[in-house]
Amino acid sequence: MTTPHEETLFSLWRELVDVSSASAVLEWDQETYMPSKGQEGRGRALSTLAGIRHRLVTAPELSDALSACEEKAEPGSDLEAQCREARRTVDRASRVSEDLAKALAEATSQGLASWQKARAGSDFSVFEESLGRIIELRREQAEAIDSSRSTYDVLMDEFEPGATESALAPVFENLCEQLSPLILEAAKSRPVDEAPAMGDFPVAEQKAFGLFVAEQMGFDFQAGRLDATTHPFCSGFHSNDVRITWRHLEGDFRSALYGIMHEAGHGLYEQGLPSKWAGTPIGGAVSLGIHESQSRLWENLVGRSRSFWKWALPHFVKHFPAKDGLTVDQLWPALHTARPSLIRVEADEATYNLHIAIRFDIERRLFAGEISVPDLPEAWDNAYEKYLGIRAENASDGVLQDIHWSMGAFGYFPTYSLGNLIACQLFDAAENELGDLDEAFAVGEFAPLRDWLGEKVHSQGSRWNASELVQKATGQPLTAGPFLAYIRDVSSEAYGLENPAPSSGSRR
Amino acid sequence: MTTPHEETLFSLWRELVDVSSASAVLEWDQETYMPSKGQEGRGRALSTLAGIRHRLVTAPELSDALSACEEKAEPGSDLEAQCREARRTVDRASRVSEDLAKALAEATSQGLASWQKARAGSDFSVFEESLGRIIELRREQAEAIDSSRSTYDVLMDEFEPGATESALAPVFENLCEQLSPLILEAAKSRPVDEAPAMGDFPVAEQKAFGLFVAEQMGFDFQAGRLDATTHPFCSGFHSNDVRITWRHLEGDFRSALYGIMHEAGHGLYEQGLPSKWAGTPIGGAVSLGIHESQSRLWENLVGRSRSFWKWALPHFVKHFPAKDGLTVDQLWPALHTARPSLIRVEADEATYNLHIAIRFDIERRLFAGEISVPDLPEAWDNAYEKYLGIRAENASDGVLQDIHWSMGAFGYFPTYSLGNLIACQLFDAAENELGDLDEAFAVGEFAPLRDWLGEKVHSQGSRWNASELVQKATGQPLTAGPFLAYIRDVSSEAYGLENPAPSSGSRR
Repeated sequence: MTTPHEETLFSLWRELVDVSSASAVLEWDQETYMPSKGQEGRGRALSTLAGIRHRLVTAPELSDALSACEEKAEPGSDLEAQCREARRTVDRASRVSEDLAKALAEATSQGLASWQKARAGSDFSVFEESLGRIIELRREQAEAIDSSRSTYDVLMDEFEPGATESALAPVFENLCEQLSPLILEAAKSRPVDEAPAMGDFPVAEQKAFGLFVAEQMGFDFQAGRLDATTHPFCSGFHSNDVRITWRHLEGDFRSALYGIMHEAGHGLYEQGLPSKWAGTPIGGAVSLGIHESQSRLWENLVGRSRSFWKWALPHFVKHFPAKDGLTVDQLWPALHTARPSLIRVEADEATYNLHIAIRFDIERRLFAGEISVPDLPEAWDNAYEKYLGIRAENASDGVLQDIHWSMGAFGYFPTYSLGNLIACQLFDAAENELGDLDEAFAVGEFAPLRDWLGEKVHSQGSRWNASELVQKATGQPLTAGPFLAYIRDVSSEAYGLENPAPSSGSRR
Repeated sequence: MTTPHEETLFSLWRELVDVSSASAVLEWDQETYMPSKGQEGRGRALSTLAGIRHRLVTAPELSDALSACEEKAEPGSDLEAQCREARRTVDRASRVSEDLAKALAEATSQGLASWQKARAGSDFSVFEESLGRIIELRREQAEAIDSSRSTYDVLMDEFEPGATESALAPVFENLCEQLSPLILEAAKSRPVDEAPAMGDFPVAEQKAFGLFVAEQMGFDFQAGRLDATTHPFCSGFHSNDVRITWRHLEGDFRSALYGIMHEAGHGLYEQGLPSKWAGTPIGGAVSLGIHESQSRLWENLVGRSRSFWKWALPHFVKHFPAKDGLTVDQLWPALHTARPSLIRVEADEATYNLHIAIRFDIERRLFAGEISVPDLPEAWDNAYEKYLGIRAENASDGVLQDIHWSMGAFGYFPTYSLGNLIACQLFDAAENELGDLDEAFAVGEFAPLRDWLGEKVHSQGSRWNASELVQKATGQPLTAGPFLAYIRDVSSEAYGLENPAPSSGSRR
């Protein structure tokens, strides 16, 4: 029943997706196994692929086929959704010249290399020139896509379609207002005992335990793999080949385990994308906020729960016999610290959104022209002092800690906080439908939750936009309520606060 | 001084090379780290890249620019050589439709998967359908490229420009005539003592020793890496990123060490390609025969020499302390067996060309229509019985042992034998110029040989065709003389034959 126009649209889109998939393989290899001298040639190859992708997206045949499909699509139909997603991509690309697209690919590839060097030597100046060039090109790109909107809104739109500064600013303000007092109060209390999470955790055992947990979560290692990188990530070449990566601390198992559960959460989304729409405009994940909701849900709401540890602890002890005798009640508080820290990816679930608020604010000011590249280290350190009361001793622990800017990913950070909010909202909705999940977790049964997420989120691809998806899956629009209730509960209990703020019911 | 036409030619060629480089990364990953379910999607991505490459090679702008450059190129100039190589590629591609190119890429990607399955289960029938399809498509392709020549000649031309059945058949006949009696005579003698090469060689130590030797050869691990695969290979994404792979036997160090020296020999060629011509038509290796001469030279003429072991043995013993006390004289014969064997890649330097002669003969008959796919196992086993006096007990050790056919690489095998001949010819020429190399080898100095090869071969790219290169580097046309002299000498000594055939001088 597909028309020739649809056939053209889908066959051209398939090519586009294949080229993106090839680029993703090159990027994965760049982060995992590529030898150091390979950088320049890899940057060139990626730049060439970006140029080819750009030509494919902006090809007149694609544009013609899309217009024809748009005319024919019934309101509310799958085809209409296909056209919506295709149109967004085509418009974003066709307004950017091939030269600019190639320059961006090359600049970010070089940016990655100089960020790595700068970070290794903790010297921001090594990264300055590359970063300046990337910002300049991103500004140029945003201007070309839509000069009527703020640069930062246009940048965010790439990662979270529809998100705006004006909508997000109050959310972050609200989060800060609620979180700061909680964290300050917790910081004044006796610290939680983190010794249960510390010790000597040999890397091979950490990897083995992480692989075991990811497998129990349902990550399919016949359709994916785990490798070590400086900065953990998940990259889905397609639903049958999803790469996740990890890193570790020898003396603290939480970094590796929760990193792996986080990336495996992303990975389940990628592996669960709808095969019937593979290679089509709505075949991919809908937004980074939704993506992050999947990783955070597994990392925090599952992985830090008492019931998860009832099941996991005996396995944990098998890998780390020195922890024999440890109880869930001893361990649990160490999984729910609310402590100011310098490194975002090591931050606890309570503090995390403050890290994001800082980045959101700095990025907005950077693109509003209020601060410039050389000001970044100072602006960064000042913000950390203001919000968290601490300053980084060197740039590696401060402004150089994240890979994102080296990849040109400005406007990306806010999606992390959206992920935290949506995760809690989805988890509440799952328990409303399935009943309490603790019994299942306590015997290592994660299939009910995974299947629910598969049905409500993964298998939907980009059939609905992010707001629609949240509404359909949870029965209500996006709200920070469940997240704030969760954080209040766990932080209050972990820190034994006498007057916990009112909460919305019993939490893990 | 470059004209606009040259600029167009070189800039389009650069894109072409980048797309090929991207495909090579995907293929490398497919062999090393890709999870099993990734196969189908990877095949599609490779097929899409092959289609894109085909469109680039056959683009009218490229054709126009090439024609303009051809008109302008001075005889004997670099530009003329650029045009010669570009023309060969453009003509081979433009005569093949995009559909056929894509079908071939997909068929060979699927072929690889079914070959792997067939090999694991030692069941040729699992591979039959894929193989039949690949052969059919390759025949169609050869017909499209040049219907006036034999299919097999057109296929060989892809790997060894200019090689023909009629030229090679007498070479293989001559080799068989000279080698068979030698191997039969050796087989009747007391076997050489292989115990010095046997024992317990832990995989980690084998890898460490192999890495050490490859590094001493001059392979740059900042511009390359070594990974494990079923079938070892070398893939150069560009001269600064060259991937070599290996496999091992626990009980016999020769498989891993000589595999690594072999691939590192290929790797030195790739790393030594001329940077001034990188990404241009003459920037790559000239032919597979020349490529194989580099691997064989290091594997056999260096790695099996007494002088190499004078230097290497103490290092070897550090990795394998159980071999303490072993002498070079005890080890040397075990490196020069001349013994009929089933597996080509494990075959000794004397027998190796008989394995190739068998494949050359079977491939020719297959494409001449004298045998069909279902006949292959029987034809294979009969040939081994005839030439080597042995039959494989199962298909994995017989017709399924090589990866080549699953990749559609018919006409590739003969280049291995050309490599053996050219290696000896080059080595003789190097010693004629540099003097005896044994003293250098005995103290681990390989730079004089490597630099000579770099100057005469690696840095020449495809400036000259293979025959011209051999003539320029050695002062004479291709000849089997040095190879036969070498084999006669080492086999006679290893087997203590009383009447060695006349030789051309002292050999290692």
